[in-house]
Amino acid sequence: MSEGVSSAAGIAGRFQPSQQPSDDLWEVLYTTRAIRRMKPDPVSDDVVYRLLDAAIRAPSGGNQQGWRFLVIRDQQTKERLGELYRESIAALFASGYGQAPPGVTPTPAQVEEAEKIRKSAQYLATHFAEVPVYVLGCIRAAANAGITAGASIYPAIWSLQLAARALGLGSTLTTVHRMREAQVKELLGVPEGFETAALIPIGYPRGTFAPGPRQPVEAVSFLDRWDTPLELSAS
Amino acid sequence: MSEGVSSAAGIAGRFQPSQQPSDDLWEVLYTTRAIRRMKPDPVSDDVVYRLLDAAIRAPSGGNQQGWRFLVIRDQQTKERLGELYRESIAALFASGYGQAPPGVTPTPAQVEEAEKIRKSAQYLATHFAEVPVYVLGCIRAAANAGITAGASIYPAIWSLQLAARALGLGSTLTTVHRMREAQVKELLGVPEGFETAALIPIGYPRGTFAPGPRQPVEAVSFLDRWDTPLELSAS
Repeated sequence: MSEGVSSAAGIAGRFQPSQQPSDDLWEVLYTTRAIRRMKPDPVSDDVVYRLLDAAIRAPSGGNQQGWRFLVIRDQQTKERLGELYRESIAALFASGYGQAPPGVTPTPAQVEEAEKIRKSAQYLATHFAEVPVYVLGCIRAAANAGITAGASIYPAIWSLQLAARALGLGSTLTTVHRMREAQVKELLGVPEGFETAALIPIGYPRGTFAPGPRQPVEAVSFLDRWDTPLELSAS
Repeated sequence: MSEGVSSAAGIAGRFQPSQQPSDDLWEVLYTTRAIRRMKPDPVSDDVVYRLLDAAIRAPSGGNQQGWRFLVIRDQQTKERLGELYRESIAALFASGYGQAPPGVTPTPAQVEEAEKIRKSAQYLATHFAEVPVYVLGCIRAAANAGITAGASIYPAIWSLQLAARALGLGSTLTTVHRMREAQVKELLGVPEGFETAALIPIGYPRGTFAPGPRQPVEAVSFLDRWDTPLELSAS
């Protein structure tokens, strides 16, 4: 492996935990981790608009822009949504959430991390209505849409989260509300023909932005054919 | 609408068409548009590694990181994949690709844009093997996985594309190969239990980076309930 490759691998080490805004693309890509513990401080209208304006620059299949963004700020709506969220989390945990997929043996570090995520998700569920703003990302799609329907909404959602982190706001991509999707759609008036792809809580973080734990590139990449190690040499 | 909101809406106008690299988060979010016409210039190993190292910082459900990235550079593999890609494009176009979804009447501008995308996609199909490198993004998922399986791979794919644009490289998110997914999986050795979520061509662009055509935030956003206009006032 070339020196250049080694130094590329070390990029994550450059970024220290921080609560500060940043316009640096690399810092934002590397330090936007899931934030589920938010301060109750309000998020201004200008900021919400900037997040949405960044989101809509993402690609969608055939540039159809079948996305819809529902900004949720009303306290009563958040409280009712919080009830559905807690029911969803309970149903998810009961179904064995956090367990490794079939055929995969988790390491002790992975077991520990899963427990951490569970606790953090439970915290969000308990404090749901204290989060200042949610964005529900929806996409025009058939009810039985496959994975690729996500290609027209998750890039936009991720752009919104990156823009949030750039402005010093925490967020996390959640889909658990889909355990009660019919009720969520009814509460918010989401019509037939749209799927609710992600519910994103947004607020100023209690914790810090920092690179999350990840398996290295070499563990998840191949060259030209599956199971052929990625051995990149200096060019 | 507040002045602040108006100025936020004008961010896209700040960015001029360019082929230059940029580390500015906002420029990258706003100007990463689909690039399908690439120069044949090689992409260095270091650069490919940087793209993958950025991609793996994205979130995935439960931080499971079920993603796998297949870097395709071998000329013979690209040529065989190109044949499957051209078959896929032909099948897609025959199925009415580019037509508006049921119940949606496209504007003349949308009809024109759809034709532009068709031509650009056909160009990529014809010149498939000239693109220096492809990344096939895969995700561990059931064969009948729904839209939310995409939440664990498309953020990573989009981070890869944003990192590419930051380094002056063009890319586009394609899923059309799935019209021949069984053959693609066989060619590349993708095992059971993984879905091929996106095939990303990467190369130095013949054209420029610039904001793409988009409906404004107001046309795709609601406040608290579907069909309630998003009226953000100055805070």
